[in-house]
Amino acid sequence: MRPVDLIRKKRDGGEHSREEVFSLVESFTCGNVPDYQMSAWLMAVVLRGLTNSETAALTEAMLRSGRVMDLSALPGAKVDKHSTGGVGDKTSLILAPVVAAGGLRVPMISGRGLGHTGGTLDKLESIPGFNVNLSPADFVKVLGACSCVMAGQTAEIVPADKKMYALRDVTGTVESPALICASIMSKKLAEGIDALVLDVKTGSGAFMKRPEEAEHLAKMMVATGERMGKRVAALITDMDQPLGRAVGNSLEVRECLEVLRGDRQPMSDDLRSLSLELAAWMFYLGGRAETVPAGRSLGERMIDSGEALRKFLEMCRLQGAAPSFDGRPDRLPLAEHTAGFKASAEGFIESIHCEQVGLASLVLGGGRNKQDDVIDHAVGLELHKKTGVAVKSGELIATVHYNNSAMLSGALLLLKEAYRIGPKPPDRPRQLVGKVIHTLKS
Amino acid sequence: MRPVDLIRKKRDGGEHSREEVFSLVESFTCGNVPDYQMSAWLMAVVLRGLTNSETAALTEAMLRSGRVMDLSALPGAKVDKHSTGGVGDKTSLILAPVVAAGGLRVPMISGRGLGHTGGTLDKLESIPGFNVNLSPADFVKVLGACSCVMAGQTAEIVPADKKMYALRDVTGTVESPALICASIMSKKLAEGIDALVLDVKTGSGAFMKRPEEAEHLAKMMVATGERMGKRVAALITDMDQPLGRAVGNSLEVRECLEVLRGDRQPMSDDLRSLSLELAAWMFYLGGRAETVPAGRSLGERMIDSGEALRKFLEMCRLQGAAPSFDGRPDRLPLAEHTAGFKASAEGFIESIHCEQVGLASLVLGGGRNKQDDVIDHAVGLELHKKTGVAVKSGELIATVHYNNSAMLSGALLLLKEAYRIGPKPPDRPRQLVGKVIHTLKS
Repeated sequence: MRPVDLIRKKRDGGEHSREEVFSLVESFTCGNVPDYQMSAWLMAVVLRGLTNSETAALTEAMLRSGRVMDLSALPGAKVDKHSTGGVGDKTSLILAPVVAAGGLRVPMISGRGLGHTGGTLDKLESIPGFNVNLSPADFVKVLGACSCVMAGQTAEIVPADKKMYALRDVTGTVESPALICASIMSKKLAEGIDALVLDVKTGSGAFMKRPEEAEHLAKMMVATGERMGKRVAALITDMDQPLGRAVGNSLEVRECLEVLRGDRQPMSDDLRSLSLELAAWMFYLGGRAETVPAGRSLGERMIDSGEALRKFLEMCRLQGAAPSFDGRPDRLPLAEHTAGFKASAEGFIESIHCEQVGLASLVLGGGRNKQDDVIDHAVGLELHKKTGVAVKSGELIATVHYNNSAMLSGALLLLKEAYRIGPKPPDRPRQLVGKVIHTLKS
Repeated sequence: MRPVDLIRKKRDGGEHSREEVFSLVESFTCGNVPDYQMSAWLMAVVLRGLTNSETAALTEAMLRSGRVMDLSALPGAKVDKHSTGGVGDKTSLILAPVVAAGGLRVPMISGRGLGHTGGTLDKLESIPGFNVNLSPADFVKVLGACSCVMAGQTAEIVPADKKMYALRDVTGTVESPALICASIMSKKLAEGIDALVLDVKTGSGAFMKRPEEAEHLAKMMVATGERMGKRVAALITDMDQPLGRAVGNSLEVRECLEVLRGDRQPMSDDLRSLSLELAAWMFYLGGRAETVPAGRSLGERMIDSGEALRKFLEMCRLQGAAPSFDGRPDRLPLAEHTAGFKASAEGFIESIHCEQVGLASLVLGGGRNKQDDVIDHAVGLELHKKTGVAVKSGELIATVHYNNSAMLSGALLLLKEAYRIGPKPPDRPRQLVGKVIHTLKS
């Protein structure tokens, strides 16, 4: 079949065979199908959807477009987590060492921030010397030495996704659950893992605003992972307000170090809870815990014993951090100035609009508008009050960490838009973890 | 709005403003919107549709992308016809001289054949010396001298359509009534006409297989033409079997000359009828007849008096045909060989599949698979029996005119597939002209 016939087939609501999907992806990746045909097909997919078997075929075709990590030489189960992204979402930095300390291997390939959401790689790079650009050989070496590794994607991994995503970004074809699923799952499965936990965010700061959308995507990803022979579970989690209390690269690493040290700060409780919940599922799926609650206890023990923090510091040193880096907050860059954002009235925090908070960090220089923007790792926000908390007029709500004072007023304005203070606390308490999607027998 | 935002808007079912449509078409035409964005937008249009005002804006934006003929220096109403195309559809060659002889001006810009459908330009070029490549100045000169002219599109006319059609052709985005309407109407309105008759074909050999589809497109085109201040009517006509009895360039010109001469051949009756019906509407819309029946009588008189034939020959000479060309059949190229296609059984012709007949002419060399294929003007088919006619076993159904005997068996096989002979004549007689779509007061 010619590419134009495949486009017409999807346009008319037909179902592609596995061979058709493979042929399209292969031809696109090597340049035989031009961008203008691919974008027409992508738009047809956005509007017509893909069946489960088409989605699985697309995922596998993309996965096969490049190198798949071979981790079979390393003993033990390899488990990873993927989050659909949000503001203050920094669980990876806690999870990876907790789960590695608990006896599984965590080969984690992460991305950079864009727009209002941050990226794990940018956060890690606020640690002086930390190198996220590992060759496949070095990636395996670090994973072998300390059971966890956190690095960026190399060109050999899923080149089809890189090319397709660039095209989707400029042709209005990002918003398709099937395409999102194939993009995420192909990259994760290329890591050579045995099991995967998906953190599918929903709420104002998430890509999927409504829980049903999140659930739909979650089911699709679980089904696709299982077709590829992996153990997969997806947690639908809240992103109606930022996770934890820090937003901004260096500040977020500090918060993670606090959690790893076992410090309990009330506004970071959600971060600790979610990290332990995700770790619990990773332990369960990876066969290190009989049940999810047992996995949670194992995670808590790894924090309480200091094993998780030691594991994190070990990974940092193996990835180039200065031997003197001991996890103390003053080893990380701090912005030169701080300013307070205060309550304009008495009442309760009714809501915190995530996107505005993320943008506030972005305008300070902590994020990227375009892919080649340079990041200031030290700047960001610390939220002292979150949704449901009572405040007095003039009370400190957040601290802005900044280097360029020209940007301060913009950040404060965005915070003012983000925080809504009203006379009553919200009707319903926050449900941090909603449904869990999986097909495993308990 | 950035192009990607326009794509997203249409993808989500939104309605574009006139300014948005103009900006997209202008940016695409000058190369500022790349093909891959345009094709994504086109696919969104195919699946989401365009409103009437969006279609009108698209038509006008395309029209304005190039030169619009200025025929204001020539007195009298300018009227044209457009057909959505079919097999054996050759009415233009009859209409143009009939209507010009009857006192209107017919500035006709036509196309070439592709696939199973023939093109008016190819037919005209079977007349020795006939030149279809006229400059805009020569186009106006011929129109001024003999009131009708038939030529190809120049690069200055609607460049946006040329670029957009090439993209639609390879991205599965041809099949959209709104895009078809804008493509047809922008080209026709660029001719500087006052009125237009649309011949919208339906049936097995037409682009629109079902009458409702044809009607939908017809209504859209009439509405668009009227928004641009033109008098427009659309006739839904039958293309369930070829029109007339000749298929192939030179053979079709011969058939038209017969009709213009007033010869009445039973198997060409439909061609004569439809041509007179279209001419009647042109006379009516152009203000030369008070009613459509009066227009029909005027057309008949133009044939009976020989005026129409003289007009055709005058146009041929003005467009480069040899002065000796007097319309006699033997002045046109004839294929070297003929072969008979005979009935394999006794019965009635139940149906003739148009596409197969068109393809039979194509394989003989009379059509094009690709745009740069060279055509053999002399080859083609003559159909002696059409739908509903009784045949005896072994009776001659069609004559194949061929030059390359290697192609004969293929053409005969296609004819065999095209003709269905059964025990009974079809239940319903053919309705050559169905609904007429217009909003004019009678």
